Amino acid sequence: MNPRLAAIPGSLIRELNALKRPTSLDLGLGEPTLRPDPRPFDIARDWIARHGCPYSPNPGFQDLRAAIATTLAVPGISGPSDVCVTNGSQEALYLAIKSLLDPARDEVAIVSPAYPLYAKLAQLEGLATRFISLDPATDFAPDADRVLAGLGPQTRLLVLASPANPTGRVWPAQQLERLARGLLERPGQPVLALSDEVYRDLAGPEGPAPSLATWYEPTYVAGSLSKSHALTGLRLGWLAGPREGIAAATKVHQFLTTAASTFSQRVAHAILTDPSTFPPPRAHYAHQRESLARMLSEAGLAALPPEGAFYTLVRLSGAPGSDPVALARELLASEDVVTIPGIAFGDEAADWIRLSCVAEERVLQEAVTRIARSVRR
Amino acid sequence: MNPRLAAIPGSLIRELNALKRPTSLDLGLGEPTLRPDPRPFDIARDWIARHGCPYSPNPGFQDLRAAIATTLAVPGISGPSDVCVTNGSQEALYLAIKSLLDPARDEVAIVSPAYPLYAKLAQLEGLATRFISLDPATDFAPDADRVLAGLGPQTRLLVLASPANPTGRVWPAQQLERLARGLLERPGQPVLALSDEVYRDLAGPEGPAPSLATWYEPTYVAGSLSKSHALTGLRLGWLAGPREGIAAATKVHQFLTTAASTFSQRVAHAILTDPSTFPPPRAHYAHQRESLARMLSEAGLAALPPEGAFYTLVRLSGAPGSDPVALARELLASEDVVTIPGIAFGDEAADWIRLSCVAEERVLQEAVTRIARSVRR
Repeated sequence: MNPRLAAIPGSLIRELNALKRPTSLDLGLGEPTLRPDPRPFDIARDWIARHGCPYSPNPGFQDLRAAIATTLAVPGISGPSDVCVTNGSQEALYLAIKSLLDPARDEVAIVSPAYPLYAKLAQLEGLATRFISLDPATDFAPDADRVLAGLGPQTRLLVLASPANPTGRVWPAQQLERLARGLLERPGQPVLALSDEVYRDLAGPEGPAPSLATWYEPTYVAGSLSKSHALTGLRLGWLAGPREGIAAATKVHQFLTTAASTFSQRVAHAILTDPSTFPPPRAHYAHQRESLARMLSEAGLAALPPEGAFYTLVRLSGAPGSDPVALARELLASEDVVTIPGIAFGDEAADWIRLSCVAEERVLQEAVTRIARSVRR
Repeated sequence: MNPRLAAIPGSLIRELNALKRPTSLDLGLGEPTLRPDPRPFDIARDWIARHGCPYSPNPGFQDLRAAIATTLAVPGISGPSDVCVTNGSQEALYLAIKSLLDPARDEVAIVSPAYPLYAKLAQLEGLATRFISLDPATDFAPDADRVLAGLGPQTRLLVLASPANPTGRVWPAQQLERLARGLLERPGQPVLALSDEVYRDLAGPEGPAPSLATWYEPTYVAGSLSKSHALTGLRLGWLAGPREGIAAATKVHQFLTTAASTFSQRVAHAILTDPSTFPPPRAHYAHQRESLARMLSEAGLAALPPEGAFYTLVRLSGAPGSDPVALARELLASEDVVTIPGIAFGDEAADWIRLSCVAEERVLQEAVTRIARSVRR
């Protein structure tokens, strides 16, 4: 067995999810509970009836890549050559980490708390990692100066997510601009950025979250339709960014999987070229986030401001016996509520637990009641 | 950029395919020209309408993994835990090479001529490789003793394909049994086998080609519906074998892509659980192989015996000015015929060119006429 693979520990998130019962109130979920629109599937099915089901070009169908570039609407990503269509944004993250860096000398810096996969992918590829912690005292507010100060001499790739998992925080344009300026002014070889925008369409009720790529050209954007369109099983994502890097990523993509599913690509094309038939449910998630925030506040629990994605962190420190991992286990065992301890996303989140707001409101309310009861016990 | 990635040369196959014109007679193709049955797509579409499009479990839906194990029908692969569903057989090959070996000491041995990807994947992962050449003088006949003699002290994984690309040769049961016996009797740590069975259903007119896994338990089988069911764009394959190794491969699979497409998995399940509605077109390909062999023979060209897959190698040595790479370029430039030089698959095939037999018979006939004319020039 690959010793690097063996060294990667099991996932606390998966361990807790595996203990879930059919009766559980699941606030651990990272998957929408909405149903997808079936029409793009009909369009893709008709395409297959006409054309069969051949390979697409390795980086994906040209019309889909063009539609993705148009959707992203950032200066550096102008057309099909700047996009590689992937098997979900997860493969996009892997392609960037695998293709853009030299494990002999490059380091990956991760803005934390963060989705645990970034560090695992770096570890799998033998890359050094450093974590740049946002400040719990500011509710993990996006903070360009803090990130810039945290970079090291060997940092070659900066990974950040906005809206972020697990905090739900959204990087405002002004902080992204400040971050871009700082990166541009930095001496030495340029730091590449990997911007995980899988929750891009789930920010505010108004529109997509701003992207670092708008101000910083060496940014690779990872995205997908999984979260915004309730299509996690479509496995359709993209890596978009500077052409040379996309060519390298496409070389790896071709070796690993040849190309993404032709059917999934036709579904995605149908969605992106007629978004009016199937808009991201921004208002729905904004409402869910606000509802959960209100319930938590009414229950006397301190949580982060509801900004994006479908997560929040709830602060537990100060509560008697507040070991969040023990509490999460206890919540599942005694109260039948699934939550995820913050430690899964970084040491700086150890005093918190992550809740998801995708469930129906009555489920959210009952779960919050049980959590509050458990915390006070 | 990853220096190992940068060191992998471009593909001669892709280079020639890129020069293809709309008028070209394409005997370079590795993709069926038959149309897939649309009914499994309807079944999958109805499944999505009922269930949405959620993630499957990381290794794939349990019912599909059970159906794959049943289809393979080898002793060591008995149920869902022995199977990981992948994004095409290409990902299955990568998972095996990435997860089962230690680059610090393990070597990959490849039975050659071979699909060039095996060596590229090993190179990408920093693994040493050795090629075990079958003998051109025997028409690259499968030869267990020759393979056993070619293994080295550090060999940890033996990669072979049956039916083989580019030779179309099929390993008979008796040779596989002999190979298994030799591997079992070998001292030292056991050699794992990776059996590429993507053309499994395209052998003879009778039934699937035999699998090394029938006689040798430490065999990992890579397969898919791409070639047998004209579904290259479905990107649905599998890695099946010893449970412990499949667990390691699934860990990598989960990091890389989470899971394979839910839709593609439902299509595959529909096909594998009711094969009567959609049998592999064995008789069709047997006829195509025989036709191409007859045409080549009538044109005075020496080719390999037609046994499986949809390829054959044509011998060019002895012909005046017989540099096959130059000939392939010349065939494309002057005769508008796409062929692939054997050197793309290994040095021992340098005197040959690969032809595919998926095209219509009139295309095959015209292409053979032009090839014969060009060879004699």
